[in-house]
Amino acid sequence: MKVHLSLIGMGAGHPDHITLQGVAALRRAQLVLVPRKGADKADLADLRLSLCRELLPPGAAVLAPFDMPVRQGGETDYLGAVDRWHDAIAQVWLDTIARHLPEGGAVALLVWGDPSLYDSTLRIAQRLASRVDLSVTVVPGITALQALTAAHAIPLNEINAPVLITTGRQLRADGWPASAETVAVLLDGQGSFQHLDPVGLHIWWGAFLGMPHQLCISGPLAEVSATIVREREQARARHGWLMDTYLLRRARNTVEHHAD
Amino acid sequence: MKVHLSLIGMGAGHPDHITLQGVAALRRAQLVLVPRKGADKADLADLRLSLCRELLPPGAAVLAPFDMPVRQGGETDYLGAVDRWHDAIAQVWLDTIARHLPEGGAVALLVWGDPSLYDSTLRIAQRLASRVDLSVTVVPGITALQALTAAHAIPLNEINAPVLITTGRQLRADGWPASAETVAVLLDGQGSFQHLDPVGLHIWWGAFLGMPHQLCISGPLAEVSATIVREREQARARHGWLMDTYLLRRARNTVEHHAD
Repeated sequence: MKVHLSLIGMGAGHPDHITLQGVAALRRAQLVLVPRKGADKADLADLRLSLCRELLPPGAAVLAPFDMPVRQGGETDYLGAVDRWHDAIAQVWLDTIARHLPEGGAVALLVWGDPSLYDSTLRIAQRLASRVDLSVTVVPGITALQALTAAHAIPLNEINAPVLITTGRQLRADGWPASAETVAVLLDGQGSFQHLDPVGLHIWWGAFLGMPHQLCISGPLAEVSATIVREREQARARHGWLMDTYLLRRARNTVEHHAD
Repeated sequence: MKVHLSLIGMGAGHPDHITLQGVAALRRAQLVLVPRKGADKADLADLRLSLCRELLPPGAAVLAPFDMPVRQGGETDYLGAVDRWHDAIAQVWLDTIARHLPEGGAVALLVWGDPSLYDSTLRIAQRLASRVDLSVTVVPGITALQALTAAHAIPLNEINAPVLITTGRQLRADGWPASAETVAVLLDGQGSFQHLDPVGLHIWWGAFLGMPHQLCISGPLAEVSATIVREREQARARHGWLMDTYLLRRARNTVEHHAD
Protein backbone atom coordinates (compact mmCIF):
# COMPACT_ATOMS: atom_id res chain seq x y z
CA MET A 1 0.00 0.00 0.00
CA LYS A 2 1.47 3.34 -1.10
CA VAL A 3 0.12 6.41 0.67
CA HIS A 4 0.68 10.08 -0.05
CA LEU A 5 -0.29 12.06 3.03
CA SER A 6 -0.88 15.83 2.91
CA LEU A 7 -0.82 17.53 6.30
CA ILE A 8 -2.67 20.77 5.68
CA GLY A 9 -2.48 23.67 8.12
CA MET A 10 -6.09 24.87 8.40
CA GLY A 11 -5.34 27.97 10.45
CA ALA A 12 -6.40 28.97 13.90
CA GLY A 13 -10.17 29.19 13.97
CA HIS A 14 -11.20 31.40 11.04
CA PRO A 15 -12.51 29.34 8.10
CA ASP A 16 -10.73 31.71 5.70
CA HIS A 17 -7.30 31.16 7.30
CA ILE A 18 -6.70 28.27 4.91
CA THR A 19 -4.31 29.10 2.06
CA LEU A 20 -4.91 28.60 -1.66
CA GLN A 21 -2.23 25.90 -1.42
CA GLY A 22 -4.24 24.21 1.32
CA VAL A 23 -7.43 24.29 -0.73
CA ALA A 24 -5.62 22.74 -3.72
CA ALA A 25 -4.08 19.99 -1.56
CA LEU A 26 -7.47 19.19 -0.01
CA ARG A 27 -9.03 18.91 -3.47
CA ARG A 28 -6.35 16.49 -4.63
CA ALA A 29 -7.14 14.05 -1.81
CA GLN A 30 -9.13 10.85 -2.31
CA LEU A 31 -9.61 10.44 1.42
CA VAL A 32 -9.79 13.05 4.20
CA LEU A 33 -9.16 11.84 7.75
CA VAL A 34 -11.43 13.71 10.17
CA PRO A 35 -10.51 13.26 13.83
CA ARG A 36 -13.37 13.45 16.34
CA LYS A 37 -12.16 14.75 19.66
CA GLY A 38 -15.30 14.47 21.73
CA ALA A 39 -18.00 16.94 22.64
CA ASP A 40 -15.76 19.35 24.56
CA LYS A 41 -14.06 20.55 21.39
CA ALA A 42 -17.08 20.31 19.13
CA ASP A 43 -16.38 23.76 17.63
CA LEU A 44 -13.05 22.51 16.23
CA ALA A 45 -14.46 19.30 14.76
CA ASP A 46 -17.30 21.31 13.24
CA LEU A 47 -14.88 23.76 11.63
CA ARG A 48 -12.98 20.86 10.01
CA LEU A 49 -16.17 19.37 8.60
CA SER A 50 -17.56 22.69 7.41
CA LEU A 51 -14.24 23.46 5.65
CA CYS A 52 -14.48 20.12 3.84
CA ARG A 53 -18.09 20.71 2.89
CA GLU A 54 -17.35 24.22 1.65
CA LEU A 55 -14.13 23.55 -0.21
CA LEU A 56 -14.64 20.06 -1.65
CA PRO A 57 -16.87 19.48 -4.67
CA PRO A 58 -19.56 16.85 -3.90
CA GLY A 59 -18.14 13.34 -4.18
CA ALA A 60 -14.57 14.62 -4.60
CA ALA A 61 -13.15 12.83 -1.59
CA VAL A 62 -14.33 10.35 1.02
CA LEU A 63 -14.58 11.94 4.46
CA ALA A 64 -13.48 9.40 7.06
CA PRO A 65 -14.27 10.45 10.63
CA PHE A 66 -12.44 8.50 13.32
CA ASP A 67 -12.40 8.70 17.11
CA MET A 68 -9.15 10.02 18.51
CA PRO A 69 -7.57 7.68 21.08
CA VAL A 70 -7.42 9.22 24.55
CA ARG A 71 -4.03 9.86 26.16
CA GLN A 72 -3.55 7.67 29.22
CA GLY A 73 -1.65 8.78 32.32
CA GLY A 74 1.40 10.98 31.97
CA GLU A 75 1.50 12.39 35.49
CA THR A 76 4.87 10.78 36.17
CA ASP A 77 6.03 9.90 32.65
CA TYR A 78 4.83 12.67 30.32
CA LEU A 79 6.99 11.80 27.29
CA GLY A 80 6.28 8.06 27.64
CA ALA A 81 2.53 8.69 27.74
CA VAL A 82 2.79 10.92 24.65
CA ASP A 83 4.81 8.20 22.89
CA ARG A 84 2.19 5.49 23.50
CA TRP A 85 -0.60 7.89 22.52
CA HIS A 86 1.08 8.73 19.19
CA ASP A 87 1.45 5.01 18.46
CA ALA A 88 -2.26 4.48 19.06
CA ILE A 89 -3.19 7.38 16.77
CA ALA A 90 -0.91 6.10 13.99
CA GLN A 91 -2.68 2.72 14.21
CA VAL A 92 -6.13 4.34 13.91
CA TRP A 93 -4.97 6.35 10.88
CA LEU A 94 -3.64 3.18 9.28
CA ASP A 95 -6.83 1.20 9.96
CA THR A 96 -8.96 4.01 8.56
CA ILE A 97 -6.83 4.36 5.42
CA ALA A 98 -6.76 0.57 4.86
CA ARG A 99 -10.56 0.39 5.16
CA HIS A 100 -11.29 3.20 2.66
CA LEU A 101 -8.26 3.05 0.35
CA PRO A 102 -7.04 -0.57 0.44
CA GLU A 103 -4.90 0.08 -2.67
CA GLY A 104 -3.45 3.25 -1.13
CA GLY A 105 -3.68 6.74 -2.63
CA ALA A 106 -3.86 10.42 -1.69
CA VAL A 107 -4.88 11.13 1.92
CA ALA A 108 -5.32 14.54 3.55
CA LEU A 109 -5.57 15.65 7.14
CA LEU A 110 -6.50 19.18 8.20
CA VAL A 111 -4.24 20.22 11.05
CA TRP A 112 -5.23 22.92 13.51
CA GLY A 113 -2.87 25.92 13.08
CA ASP A 114 0.36 24.85 11.38
CA PRO A 115 1.69 21.26 11.39
CA SER A 116 5.07 22.54 12.66
CA LEU A 117 4.05 24.29 15.88
CA TYR A 118 3.21 22.33 19.05
CA ASP A 119 1.44 19.71 17.00
CA SER A 120 2.11 15.98 16.98
CA THR A 121 0.84 15.16 13.49
CA LEU A 122 4.30 15.04 11.90
CA ARG A 123 5.58 12.73 14.64
CA ILE A 124 2.59 10.44 14.19
CA ALA A 125 3.18 10.41 10.43
CA GLN A 126 6.77 9.25 11.07
CA ARG A 127 5.40 6.17 12.84
CA LEU A 128 3.21 5.41 9.82
CA ALA A 129 6.30 5.47 7.61
CA SER A 130 7.59 2.29 9.23
CA ARG A 131 4.36 0.45 8.38
CA VAL A 132 3.44 1.63 4.84
CA ASP A 133 5.19 3.10 1.80
CA LEU A 134 4.59 6.74 2.76
CA SER A 135 5.35 10.16 1.32
CA VAL A 136 4.39 13.28 3.29
CA THR A 137 3.72 16.83 2.11
CA VAL A 138 3.29 19.66 4.61
CA VAL A 139 1.16 22.68 3.73
CA PRO A 140 1.80 25.50 6.22
CA GLY A 141 -1.09 27.24 7.97
CA ILE A 142 -1.77 30.28 10.13
CA THR A 143 -0.92 29.63 13.80
CA ALA A 144 -2.81 30.85 16.86
CA LEU A 145 0.18 33.08 17.54
CA GLN A 146 -0.26 34.84 14.19
CA ALA A 147 -4.01 35.14 14.78
CA LEU A 148 -3.13 36.74 18.13
CA THR A 149 -0.75 39.36 16.74
CA ALA A 150 -3.16 40.07 13.86
CA ALA A 151 -6.09 40.54 16.25
CA HIS A 152 -4.09 43.00 18.35
CA ALA A 153 -2.39 44.51 15.23
CA ILE A 154 1.02 44.24 16.91
CA PRO A 155 4.43 42.98 15.78
CA LEU A 156 5.59 39.72 17.39
CA ASN A 157 9.13 41.04 17.89
CA GLU A 158 10.75 44.32 18.74
CA ILE A 159 13.13 45.61 16.04
CA ASN A 160 15.80 42.96 15.41
CA ALA A 161 15.09 41.42 18.84
CA PRO A 162 14.55 37.73 19.68
CA VAL A 163 11.27 36.09 20.70
CA LEU A 164 10.94 32.94 22.79
CA ILE A 165 8.03 30.66 21.91
CA THR A 166 7.18 28.36 24.79
CA THR A 167 4.41 26.48 26.58
CA GLY A 168 2.60 27.15 29.85
CA ARG A 169 4.29 24.11 31.40
CA GLN A 170 7.78 25.39 30.44
CA LEU A 171 7.04 28.93 31.58
CA ARG A 172 6.01 27.65 35.02
CA ALA A 173 9.11 25.44 35.22
CA ASP A 174 11.67 27.95 33.88
CA GLY A 175 10.29 31.36 34.85
CA TRP A 176 11.13 34.39 32.71
CA PRO A 177 13.79 33.39 30.15
CA ALA A 178 17.29 34.82 29.89
CA SER A 179 17.33 35.04 26.10
CA ALA A 180 14.40 37.29 25.15
CA GLU A 181 12.33 40.29 26.21
CA THR A 182 9.31 38.89 24.33
CA VAL A 183 7.73 35.55 25.19
CA ALA A 184 4.87 33.89 23.30
CA VAL A 185 3.01 31.23 25.28
CA LEU A 186 0.95 28.42 23.77
CA LEU A 187 -0.64 25.25 25.17
CA ASP A 188 -1.30 26.94 28.48
CA GLY A 189 -4.37 25.50 30.16
CA GLN A 190 -3.70 27.24 33.45
CA GLY A 191 -3.04 30.93 32.87
CA SER A 192 0.62 30.49 33.81
CA PHE A 193 1.28 34.23 33.52
CA GLN A 194 0.01 34.36 37.11
CA HIS A 195 3.25 32.71 38.24
CA LEU A 196 5.42 35.62 36.98
CA ASP A 197 6.37 38.83 38.73
CA PRO A 198 4.18 41.20 36.68
CA VAL A 199 6.30 44.33 37.18
CA GLY A 200 7.31 45.79 33.81
CA LEU A 201 5.43 43.12 31.81
CA HIS A 202 2.78 43.89 29.19
CA ILE A 203 0.42 41.15 28.00
CA TRP A 204 -1.58 40.70 24.78
CA TRP A 205 -4.02 37.83 25.35
CA GLY A 206 -6.56 36.16 23.08
CA ALA A 207 -8.97 33.23 23.19
CA PHE A 208 -11.01 31.59 20.40
CA LEU A 209 -8.84 33.56 18.00
CA GLY A 210 -10.29 33.96 14.53
CA MET A 211 -13.70 32.71 15.71
CA PRO A 212 -16.87 34.81 16.02
CA HIS A 213 -16.58 34.67 19.81
CA GLN A 214 -12.92 35.79 19.83
CA LEU A 215 -11.79 37.51 23.05
CA CYS A 216 -8.87 39.96 23.28
CA ILE A 217 -7.43 41.72 26.30
CA SER A 218 -4.17 43.67 26.56
CA GLY A 219 -2.46 45.89 29.10
CA PRO A 220 0.11 45.93 31.87
CA LEU A 221 0.07 42.41 33.35
CA ALA A 222 -0.34 43.74 36.88
CA GLU A 223 -3.53 45.55 35.85
CA VAL A 224 -5.24 43.02 33.55
CA SER A 225 -4.15 39.64 34.96
CA ALA A 226 -7.21 39.20 37.17
CA THR A 227 -9.56 40.24 34.35
CA ILE A 228 -8.01 37.68 32.01
CA VAL A 229 -8.31 34.93 34.63
CA ARG A 230 -11.98 35.78 35.14
CA GLU A 231 -12.74 36.01 31.39
CA ARG A 232 -11.00 32.65 30.80
CA GLU A 233 -13.13 30.92 33.40
CA GLN A 234 -16.37 32.46 32.19
CA ALA A 235 -15.60 31.67 28.53
CA ARG A 236 -14.65 28.08 29.38
CA ALA A 237 -17.92 27.63 31.25
CA ARG A 238 -19.87 29.15 28.35
CA HIS A 239 -18.30 27.06 25.55
CA GLY A 240 -17.27 23.88 27.39
CA TRP A 241 -13.65 24.36 26.24
CA LEU A 242 -11.13 27.12 25.78
CA MET A 243 -8.04 27.66 23.68
CA ASP A 244 -6.02 30.77 24.41
CA THR A 245 -2.58 32.15 23.77
CA TYR A 246 -0.68 35.26 24.73
CA LEU A 247 2.37 37.41 24.24
CA LEU A 248 4.35 38.92 27.10
CA ARG A 249 6.82 41.76 26.57
CA ARG A 250 9.16 43.30 29.11
CA ALA A 251 9.44 47.06 28.65
CA ARG A 252 13.02 47.75 27.58
CA ASN A 253 13.29 51.01 29.48
CA THR A 254 11.41 50.14 32.63
CA VAL A 255 14.53 49.71 34.71
CA GLU A 256 16.11 52.96 33.56
CA HIS A 257 12.92 54.92 34.16
CA HIS A 258 12.44 53.52 37.64
CA ALA A 259 16.07 54.18 38.50
CA ASP A 260 15.71 57.95 37.94
CA MET B 1 -9.23 61.86 4.85
CA LYS B 2 -10.29 58.54 6.38
CA VAL B 3 -8.21 55.51 5.43
CA HIS B 4 -8.78 51.84 6.12
CA LEU B 5 -5.52 50.00 5.62
CA SER B 6 -5.36 46.21 5.26
CA LEU B 7 -1.91 44.73 5.79
CA ILE B 8 -2.15 41.36 4.08
CA GLY B 9 0.40 38.62 4.71
CA MET B 10 1.14 37.26 1.24
CA GLY B 11 3.27 34.33 2.40
CA ALA B 12 6.87 33.48 1.78
CA GLY B 13 7.36 33.04 -1.94
CA HIS B 14 4.70 30.61 -3.15
CA PRO B 15 1.83 32.42 -4.90
CA ASP B 16 -0.64 30.01 -3.23
CA HIS B 17 0.55 30.86 0.29
CA ILE B 18 -2.05 33.62 0.46
CA THR B 19 -5.11 32.76 2.56
CA LEU B 20 -8.76 33.00 1.53
CA GLN B 21 -8.97 35.84 4.06
CA GLY B 22 -6.11 37.59 2.26
CA VAL B 23 -7.79 37.20 -1.12
CA ALA B 24 -11.04 38.66 0.25
CA ALA B 25 -9.22 41.62 1.84
CA LEU B 26 -7.34 42.32 -1.39
CA ARG B 27 -10.62 42.30 -3.34
CA ARG B 28 -12.21 44.81 -0.95
CA ALA B 29 -9.44 47.37 -1.59
CA GLN B 30 -9.89 50.41 -3.80
CA LEU B 31 -6.15 51.02 -3.91
CA VAL B 32 -3.24 48.58 -3.62
CA LEU B 33 0.15 50.03 -2.68
CA VAL B 34 2.91 48.16 -4.56
CA PRO B 35 6.42 48.88 -3.27
CA ARG B 36 9.24 48.68 -5.82
CA LYS B 37 12.47 47.64 -4.19
CA GLY B 38 14.83 47.87 -7.15
CA ALA B 39 16.15 45.29 -9.57
CA ASP B 40 17.97 43.14 -7.01
CA LYS B 41 14.70 41.86 -5.53
CA ALA B 42 12.76 41.79 -8.79
CA ASP B 43 11.39 38.31 -8.01
CA LEU B 44 9.57 39.65 -4.95
CA ALA B 45 8.09 42.70 -6.70
CA ASP B 46 7.00 40.45 -9.57
CA LEU B 47 5.26 38.06 -7.19
CA ARG B 48 3.30 40.95 -5.67
CA LEU B 49 2.17 42.18 -9.08
CA SER B 50 1.33 38.71 -10.37
CA LEU B 51 -0.75 38.03 -7.23
CA CYS B 52 -2.70 41.24 -7.88
CA ARG B 53 -3.21 40.39 -11.53
CA GLU B 54 -4.32 36.86 -10.71
CA LEU B 55 -6.57 37.60 -7.75
CA LEU B 56 -8.12 40.96 -8.63
CA PRO B 57 -10.91 41.21 -11.20
CA PRO B 58 -10.00 43.75 -13.93
CA GLY B 59 -10.63 47.30 -12.77
CA ALA B 60 -11.36 46.20 -9.19
CA ALA B 61 -8.61 48.26 -7.59
CA VAL B 62 -6.03 50.82 -8.62
CA LEU B 63 -2.49 49.43 -8.40
CA ALA B 64 -0.18 52.17 -7.20
CA PRO B 65 3.50 51.31 -7.53
CA PHE B 66 5.88 53.48 -5.54
CA ASP B 67 9.64 53.51 -5.07
CA MET B 68 10.74 52.45 -1.60
CA PRO B 69 13.00 55.01 0.10
CA VAL B 70 16.49 53.68 0.71
CA ARG B 71 17.75 53.32 4.30
CA GLN B 72 20.63 55.71 4.97
CA GLY B 73 23.55 54.87 7.24
CA GLY B 74 22.98 52.81 10.37
CA GLU B 75 26.53 51.61 10.92
CA THR B 76 26.76 53.45 14.24
CA ASP B 77 23.09 54.20 14.98
CA TYR B 78 21.04 51.24 13.71
CA LEU B 79 17.75 52.07 15.48
CA GLY B 80 18.00 55.78 14.57
CA ALA B 81 18.54 54.95 10.90
CA VAL B 82 15.55 52.57 10.95
CA ASP B 83 13.45 55.27 12.60
CA ARG B 84 14.20 57.87 9.88
CA TRP B 85 13.65 55.27 7.17
CA HIS B 86 10.20 54.33 8.54
CA ASP B 87 9.25 58.03 8.58
CA ALA B 88 10.23 58.40 4.95
CA ILE B 89 8.21 55.32 3.95
CA ALA B 90 5.13 56.56 5.84
CA GLN B 91 5.37 59.84 3.89
CA VAL B 92 5.54 58.02 0.53
CA TRP B 93 2.49 55.91 1.49
CA LEU B 94 0.60 59.04 2.44
CA ASP B 95 1.51 60.89 -0.76
CA THR B 96 0.51 57.87 -2.87
CA ILE B 97 -2.82 57.47 -1.07
CA ALA B 98 -3.58 61.21 -1.30
CA ARG B 99 -2.87 61.19 -5.05
CA HIS B 100 -5.11 58.21 -5.85
CA LEU B 101 -7.75 58.38 -3.13
CA PRO B 102 -8.02 62.07 -2.12
CA GLU B 103 -11.29 61.33 -0.30
CA GLY B 104 -9.78 58.36 1.53
CA GLY B 105 -11.04 54.76 1.34
CA ALA B 106 -9.87 51.14 1.47
CA VAL B 107 -6.15 50.62 0.89
CA ALA B 108 -4.31 47.28 0.84
CA LEU B 109 -0.65 46.39 1.05
CA LEU B 110 0.70 42.89 0.45
CA VAL B 111 3.33 42.14 3.08
CA TRP B 112 6.03 39.54 2.54
CA GLY B 113 5.51 36.66 5.01
CA ASP B 114 3.39 37.80 7.97
CA PRO B 115 3.07 41.45 9.07
CA SER B 116 4.01 40.43 12.64
CA LEU B 117 7.42 38.83 12.07
CA TYR B 118 10.55 40.91 11.47
CA ASP B 119 8.58 43.30 9.34
CA SER B 120 8.29 47.06 9.75
CA THR B 121 4.92 47.59 8.07
CA LEU B 122 2.94 47.81 11.33
CA ARG B 123 5.40 50.33 12.75
CA ILE B 124 5.16 52.44 9.59
CA ALA B 125 1.37 52.28 9.77
CA GLN B 126 1.54 53.66 13.33
CA ARG B 127 3.29 56.76 11.96
CA LEU B 128 0.47 57.22 9.43
CA ALA B 129 -2.06 57.18 12.27
CA SER B 130 -0.77 60.54 13.53
CA ARG B 131 -1.34 62.14 10.11
CA VAL B 132 -4.70 60.71 8.89
CA ASP B 133 -7.82 59.14 10.39
CA LEU B 134 -6.63 55.56 10.12
CA SER B 135 -7.95 52.09 10.92
CA VAL B 136 -5.73 49.06 10.37
CA THR B 137 -6.62 45.40 9.78
CA VAL B 138 -3.94 42.73 9.81
CA VAL B 139 -4.41 39.54 7.79
CA PRO B 140 -1.87 36.92 8.86
CA GLY B 141 0.29 35.14 6.29
CA ILE B 142 2.69 32.20 6.04
CA THR B 143 6.19 33.11 7.24
CA ALA B 144 9.51 31.97 5.77
CA LEU B 145 9.96 29.96 8.95
CA GLN B 146 6.79 27.98 8.25
CA ALA B 147 7.82 27.52 4.62
CA LEU B 148 11.12 26.16 5.95
CA THR B 149 9.61 23.60 8.33
CA ALA B 150 7.07 22.59 5.66
CA ALA B 151 9.80 22.10 3.03
CA HIS B 152 11.79 19.88 5.41
CA ALA B 153 8.59 18.29 6.83
CA ILE B 154 9.85 18.83 10.39
CA PRO B 155 8.27 20.21 13.57
CA LEU B 156 9.58 23.60 14.71
CA ASN B 157 9.74 22.51 18.34
CA GLU B 158 10.58 19.38 20.25
CA ILE B 159 7.71 18.06 22.38
CA ASN B 160 6.63 20.80 24.80
CA ALA B 161 10.03 22.51 24.38
CA PRO B 162 10.73 26.20 23.72
CA VAL B 163 12.03 27.74 20.48
CA LEU B 164 13.97 30.98 20.19
CA ILE B 165 13.30 33.05 17.07
CA THR B 166 16.13 35.46 16.41
CA THR B 167 18.12 37.29 13.75
CA GLY B 168 21.59 36.73 12.34
CA ARG B 169 22.77 39.93 14.00
CA GLN B 170 21.49 38.79 17.43
CA LEU B 171 22.91 35.29 17.04
CA ARG B 172 26.36 36.72 16.32
CA ALA B 173 26.09 39.09 19.30
CA ASP B 174 24.61 36.65 21.84
CA GLY B 175 25.92 33.23 20.77
CA TRP B 176 23.86 30.12 21.53
CA PRO B 177 20.98 31.11 23.86
CA ALA B 178 20.40 29.85 27.38
CA SER B 179 16.65 29.41 27.01
CA ALA B 180 16.15 26.97 24.14
CA GLU B 181 17.60 23.92 22.37
CA THR B 182 15.99 25.05 19.10
CA VAL B 183 16.84 28.35 17.43
CA ALA B 184 15.22 29.74 14.28
CA VAL B 185 17.24 32.41 12.51
CA LEU B 186 15.83 35.01 10.13
CA LEU B 187 17.22 38.17 8.50
CA ASP B 188 20.67 36.64 8.30
CA GLY B 189 22.59 38.01 5.36
CA GLN B 190 25.88 36.52 6.48
CA GLY B 191 25.43 32.83 7.30
CA SER B 192 25.93 33.53 11.01
CA PHE B 193 25.76 29.81 11.86
CA GLN B 194 29.47 29.82 10.99
CA HIS B 195 30.15 31.71 14.25
CA LEU B 196 28.80 28.86 16.42
CA ASP B 197 30.61 25.82 17.75
CA PRO B 198 28.94 23.21 15.49
CA VAL B 199 29.37 20.22 17.83
CA GLY B 200 25.99 18.63 18.56
CA LEU B 201 24.08 21.07 16.33
CA HIS B 202 21.82 20.01 13.46
CA ILE B 203 20.76 22.55 10.82
CA TRP B 204 17.78 22.70 8.47
CA TRP B 205 18.45 25.45 5.94
CA GLY B 206 16.38 26.85 3.07
CA ALA B 207 16.60 29.65 0.52
CA PHE B 208 13.99 31.02 -1.93
CA LEU B 209 11.47 29.02 0.09
CA GLY B 210 8.21 28.34 -1.70
CA MET B 211 9.69 29.47 -5.02
CA PRO B 212 10.45 27.22 -8.01
CA HIS B 213 14.18 27.60 -7.32
CA GLN B 214 13.86 26.67 -3.62
CA LEU B 215 17.01 25.22 -2.06
CA CYS B 216 17.04 22.96 1.03
CA ILE B 217 19.98 21.45 2.89
CA SER B 218 19.96 19.69 6.26
CA GLY B 219 22.40 17.72 8.37
CA PRO B 220 24.89 17.99 11.23
CA LEU B 221 26.16 21.59 11.13
CA ALA B 222 29.79 20.44 11.19
CA GLU B 223 29.21 18.41 8.02
CA VAL B 224 27.00 20.70 5.92
CA SER B 225 28.09 24.20 6.96
CA ALA B 226 30.61 24.61 4.13
CA THR B 227 28.12 23.28 1.56
CA ILE B 228 25.49 25.78 2.68
CA VAL B 229 27.97 28.67 2.52
CA ARG B 230 28.94 27.64 -1.03
CA GLU B 231 25.32 27.15 -2.17
CA ARG B 232 24.35 30.57 -0.72
CA GLU B 233 27.10 32.31 -2.66
CA GLN B 234 26.32 30.53 -5.91
CA ALA B 235 22.57 31.15 -5.59
CA ARG B 236 23.11 34.83 -4.77
CA ALA B 237 25.30 35.20 -7.83
CA ARG B 238 22.71 33.41 -10.00
CA HIS B 239 19.65 35.41 -8.87
CA GLY B 240 21.19 38.75 -7.85
CA TRP B 241 19.69 38.41 -4.35
CA LEU B 242 19.10 35.77 -1.73
CA MET B 243 16.71 35.29 1.15
CA ASP B 244 17.37 32.33 3.41
CA THR B 245 16.41 31.10 6.85
CA TYR B 246 17.33 28.16 9.02
CA LEU B 247 16.61 26.16 12.13
CA LEU B 248 19.31 24.91 14.49
CA ARG B 249 18.65 22.20 17.05
CA ARG B 250 21.01 20.91 19.73
CA ALA B 251 20.72 17.16 20.15
CA ARG B 252 19.33 16.50 23.62
CA ASN B 253 21.31 13.31 24.14
CA THR B 254 24.60 14.21 22.51
CA VAL B 255 26.40 14.84 25.76
CA GLU B 256 25.27 11.59 27.35
CA HIS B 257 26.25 9.55 24.28
CA HIS B 258 29.68 11.09 24.07
CA ALA B 259 30.25 10.58 27.78
CA ASP B 260 29.92 6.78 27.48
